[in-house]
Amino acid sequence: MMSQKLAEFALSECHAPQTVRAVARLSLIDWMAVGIAGRGEPVAAVMHAFAHEEGGGEQAALIGGGRVPMRMAALVNGTISHALDYDDTHFAHIGHPSVGVIPAALAVAEGMGASGAEFQEAALIGMEAAIRFGVWLGRDHYQVGFHQTGTAGAVGACVAAGRLMQLSHDQMQTALGLVATRASGLKSQFGTMGKPFNAGLAASNGVESASLARLGMEARIDALEGSQGFGPTHHGAADQSAFDGLGDHWLFENVSHKFHACCHGLHAVLEAAAEIAPAPDEITAIRVGTHPRWLTVCNQPAPETGLGAKFSYATVLPMHFLGHDTARLDSFSDALCADPKVQALRDRVEVSGDDRLSEMQAQLEVDLRDGTTLTAFHDLDAPLPLEERSQKIAAKAAALLGKERFGLIKAVVEGQGAPVGLAAMLQ
Amino acid sequence: MMSQKLAEFALSECHAPQTVRAVARLSLIDWMAVGIAGRGEPVAAVMHAFAHEEGGGEQAALIGGGRVPMRMAALVNGTISHALDYDDTHFAHIGHPSVGVIPAALAVAEGMGASGAEFQEAALIGMEAAIRFGVWLGRDHYQVGFHQTGTAGAVGACVAAGRLMQLSHDQMQTALGLVATRASGLKSQFGTMGKPFNAGLAASNGVESASLARLGMEARIDALEGSQGFGPTHHGAADQSAFDGLGDHWLFENVSHKFHACCHGLHAVLEAAAEIAPAPDEITAIRVGTHPRWLTVCNQPAPETGLGAKFSYATVLPMHFLGHDTARLDSFSDALCADPKVQALRDRVEVSGDDRLSEMQAQLEVDLRDGTTLTAFHDLDAPLPLEERSQKIAAKAAALLGKERFGLIKAVVEGQGAPVGLAAMLQ
Repeated sequence: MMSQKLAEFALSECHAPQTVRAVARLSLIDWMAVGIAGRGEPVAAVMHAFAHEEGGGEQAALIGGGRVPMRMAALVNGTISHALDYDDTHFAHIGHPSVGVIPAALAVAEGMGASGAEFQEAALIGMEAAIRFGVWLGRDHYQVGFHQTGTAGAVGACVAAGRLMQLSHDQMQTALGLVATRASGLKSQFGTMGKPFNAGLAASNGVESASLARLGMEARIDALEGSQGFGPTHHGAADQSAFDGLGDHWLFENVSHKFHACCHGLHAVLEAAAEIAPAPDEITAIRVGTHPRWLTVCNQPAPETGLGAKFSYATVLPMHFLGHDTARLDSFSDALCADPKVQALRDRVEVSGDDRLSEMQAQLEVDLRDGTTLTAFHDLDAPLPLEERSQKIAAKAAALLGKERFGLIKAVVEGQGAPVGLAAMLQ
Repeated sequence: MMSQKLAEFALSECHAPQTVRAVARLSLIDWMAVGIAGRGEPVAAVMHAFAHEEGGGEQAALIGGGRVPMRMAALVNGTISHALDYDDTHFAHIGHPSVGVIPAALAVAEGMGASGAEFQEAALIGMEAAIRFGVWLGRDHYQVGFHQTGTAGAVGACVAAGRLMQLSHDQMQTALGLVATRASGLKSQFGTMGKPFNAGLAASNGVESASLARLGMEARIDALEGSQGFGPTHHGAADQSAFDGLGDHWLFENVSHKFHACCHGLHAVLEAAAEIAPAPDEITAIRVGTHPRWLTVCNQPAPETGLGAKFSYATVLPMHFLGHDTARLDSFSDALCADPKVQALRDRVEVSGDDRLSEMQAQLEVDLRDGTTLTAFHDLDAPLPLEERSQKIAAKAAALLGKERFGLIKAVVEGQGAPVGLAAMLQ
């Protein structure tokens, strides 16, 4: 039975290799960075107002300050950390593992007084469970309109929370039965505050289900996969191979991090641009080849606002060559769009669709005054060596938080410091 | 657009005729009675423990005592009031309107200081909205495994809560957009505490969505019906006729109340039995004709426990003829099953399936020693005159709560007393 397998995995000793644990620590640092950086977003103010109105036991810290019950901290922090849409993505199921699971794990770890090692293992196991369950649900579940970040994310959050609460096997199965009747989240919310809210739902639904199981609730224990269960009712494919090698092989390891504070369609060409270093004054033409799908998504030729710049090949490439840090949120501004240097280069950018490229690939050619052409190609799907990934996340986190704060977070995460130490830094 | 219509209905002046309002008051009394009677159920202890752990603002009363934030009160009271499965049912969509909507309306009415009239209108409008939305979702939604009490119930709770929070039209549409990404509830939980929990989910999801809209949240406003919305993703039929006559004609009026503390399959024959009055000593045979479906549900020939008696034609008919009140929870006991008088009559009961009868109909024949046969037929689908319904609910509520407490509740409900007065009686 699938839920039984999930419950066993949730409570078993963690044998993840060091490389997988290292990637999980990077996702944790990344989550802290994009979460804290999101604390000024409008949706953060709404969630804070809601948490403040309810009040309650000061069990766990909120991003932006304050302490509330674990379930509410998971709801608020899950929502805020997805507000910038700058967190990690896993393409096996197409979901955002960290924003659904880490807020639940951190709130419960803090509330239950877990150690740093226990917290990090629970977060990793929860994220792996979310991805595996998401693969079990399959692509139809996503295509029809469910947001895996909310649905599979709730299962992952439940696993992480239940592990940290030290549930018995029976209680863990009950928690999974409850999360089956509780999990939700629709892709129709994309483009609104409802999208980050789905991440908060995942985290809080997981904490609530685990809490109720701990307190003696009973539920149908095969409600994820059984008759009239979550999978059958939510267009799930029930792909049995989804759990092959569970506990030995870690799908999580292939998680993708975002290194630019703009539309995902611009990332491949920005990575390609990092491989060449033309002097801006020498550039006579910039040619971009990209999958045709992106031409209607992020090809604004001359945007006038910072938001528009996030969807513009013609803007981000000049930004990069002129030394603006595309990992920083405040690099994308109206002033930038009005900068004559940016505009001069912008007019030299040509973008064309190329069917031979995948959605994750881009081809870049830069002509120089001396008649030479620099070329670069990047495929986001290619695995990034750990060291390079680590450096990129460090640069991103430092850009978002400042070097000092990033250093403190990195030290606690790498030293497996107590969750309460991380929680204190959410303010 | 469907959500726009729902939002307008939610905020419009209520023109419900007096008879409809009277039925809504009966449902409110009925909800109070079955809710308070459920306060000793095991699931009530779990929900209280959860609410106690979270704590928070003392905005609204819990069944069984204590005050918590509105959202939590809705969750706990929705769950507890469905614990006995003795609350009302609407067969247009097959759901329990009161347990999903009234706990939300009462918690918000108390929290926002609404008047008794405002509270009662909001509860009625919310229940009508739940039924209409449930009809819009259609039978496939239910058959595939969704519990309309949880799903359509959340929409009704959102409507009631949003009305009491005096949301603007735009906020109400946002609240409906949020409840679309939040609503859940599976029929696979039937037979466990997860079933009443679904009612609590409906109530709390409605309150949460309305609260967030009030605090400035934004969401896709057509997420109930639009592309990748709730209906399309949850096997909804999108039956446009579901909203015909909204505001003029009230589907809610046909709500069914349970008058016996046992399986619904026994109700029709118990109603038939009430039409005849044989002396128990004179009975030589009791023949029941019922829809064949019930033969595998509630036809235990000689149960030994109170729980078994709730699923036994052969037990409930002797109980009734011997003067045991089938509306009382404590009438169904192990001792009753061992009573020689009950057993003597029990052996004279014959039950047979009859395809010509609907699931709501039963035929009863009782042979007497003098050679005569008393016959009676009942159809639960036939509308019950208001006066008779009122008397039956009074008898049920008095049996559950005692006459004094019932009298106090009736006085507050009929006098449209302040919600805080009703809330105080939940203890």
